[in-house]
Amino acid sequence: MIAPKGGARTTRVTRYRGTESKRERDALAVEEPLEIRVSWLEGGEKRIEPLAVTMRTPGNDFELVAGFLHGEGLITTTDQLHELSYCTGPEEQEYNVVEAKLAAGVAFDPESVKRNFYATSSCGVCGKASLDAVQARGCTLLAPGLTVDAALVPQLPDRLLEAQGVFERTGGIHAAGIFTRTGERLVVMEDVGRHNAVDKVIGHQFMQRALPASDDVLVVSGRASFEVVQKAVAAGLPILVAVGAPSSLAVDLARQFGQTLIGFARNGGFNVYTRPERVD
Amino acid sequence: MIAPKGGARTTRVTRYRGTESKRERDALAVEEPLEIRVSWLEGGEKRIEPLAVTMRTPGNDFELVAGFLHGEGLITTTDQLHELSYCTGPEEQEYNVVEAKLAAGVAFDPESVKRNFYATSSCGVCGKASLDAVQARGCTLLAPGLTVDAALVPQLPDRLLEAQGVFERTGGIHAAGIFTRTGERLVVMEDVGRHNAVDKVIGHQFMQRALPASDDVLVVSGRASFEVVQKAVAAGLPILVAVGAPSSLAVDLARQFGQTLIGFARNGGFNVYTRPERVD
Repeated sequence: MIAPKGGARTTRVTRYRGTESKRERDALAVEEPLEIRVSWLEGGEKRIEPLAVTMRTPGNDFELVAGFLHGEGLITTTDQLHELSYCTGPEEQEYNVVEAKLAAGVAFDPESVKRNFYATSSCGVCGKASLDAVQARGCTLLAPGLTVDAALVPQLPDRLLEAQGVFERTGGIHAAGIFTRTGERLVVMEDVGRHNAVDKVIGHQFMQRALPASDDVLVVSGRASFEVVQKAVAAGLPILVAVGAPSSLAVDLARQFGQTLIGFARNGGFNVYTRPERVD
Repeated sequence: MIAPKGGARTTRVTRYRGTESKRERDALAVEEPLEIRVSWLEGGEKRIEPLAVTMRTPGNDFELVAGFLHGEGLITTTDQLHELSYCTGPEEQEYNVVEAKLAAGVAFDPESVKRNFYATSSCGVCGKASLDAVQARGCTLLAPGLTVDAALVPQLPDRLLEAQGVFERTGGIHAAGIFTRTGERLVVMEDVGRHNAVDKVIGHQFMQRALPASDDVLVVSGRASFEVVQKAVAAGLPILVAVGAPSSLAVDLARQFGQTLIGFARNGGFNVYTRPERVD
């Protein structure tokens, strides 16, 4: 793994407490754009297309890109991804453009992301259509087997925090982690973007050929939105634990795919929104 | 203002506290997709293009769309926006597609958002290019005159929270508010998306012809990212107060445009990252 830049940078700050103020040095979570390009072979010729630009914290960029492509349904198996590399040009290397080279024989349509969204939509665009689009991508009902101990659940956010190096320095970065059902940490990554942190850990497991993660638990430091649940469902994660609140559409999506969605995991308690039978 | 759906919805939840669990009803912040379409006249003919889909909390959708278009630099004056309306079709009205009709004579290029991003980029894509792109859009240095009392700053997040109806019910929604320099609330809006809440309040002021908001203070419930600072700079807001941390690129952008960026405004204290002379 290449980590060209640290996740934190220092700056000067004026700190006010009551009526007192003083100048100090403080650490900031780094935010930089990352352009994701996809290249593939079409009729023997190489084609390359920019797919997305995301504002992210540098580091684990290859995992981020792999997770993004998997989360969007553009690749489903590790073998479909031939190579990930930083794009170099005549300018100074800035490590802000990653090219994902698809394996020979893997078809790619740059418009597919956009089209997928509308494919099954009967009302132009609505929550129901968003749920149907995930179904249409081939995501299936999560198996019921995995359970997690109720006493472990509120400890998971602490275990996530323990692994968060940049948060400790900056207080301003999200994290996602994949844990075993007994709470062993498999991978934890940080990013200023909530979705990016999820892409990084799922991308890491994807590159390790560890998907579907049907025996594991995803833990996120923030809220659970539709997109976070969608990425977790695509990765086969049966249990999602969020420190914050879930949205209405996140609950609807978890229900549709039989995922156990847990929110407000903090201060010794938690709420189970769907499939409580996975909590022992 | 049309608010077709409430910002919260109830669901059943299993609540665990220690070893006890009980079934209860709980409120969720609503998340639904909104498609933004732009229509304009070109050679006497009406053209319409989908511009973006955002996952948002329904309510104040017109403000959201106006603020989004303004934040992206697609419109700069209120007169450039002729009309905002929900698109109706043969299907049931879902209030999830808004058409922004531009005034006659206002040019629009659907590719402009994408092109703007790369226009001034010498390194493909990087933080410096992101800052240059904001400059290229015509955003200018914010005037130094406005000041705010240091004792008022830590109170602003509380004043924001007081106005948050959906947060009170769900605990899971972001807010943004525009306040006068003496702390009087001008507008507060909520959304599951941090950026959307900012678009809603700026869009509200845009529709009221109250931009540039050069005498006002923007307060946000979460972190300050590059995008949040960009929207505030475009709206002429000289002071931005965030409850959470700023990112590195947010600080860089605030510095470039002479904005006072305040973070961690909570528990009676706060940090000033740029232009501390606006804090009395």
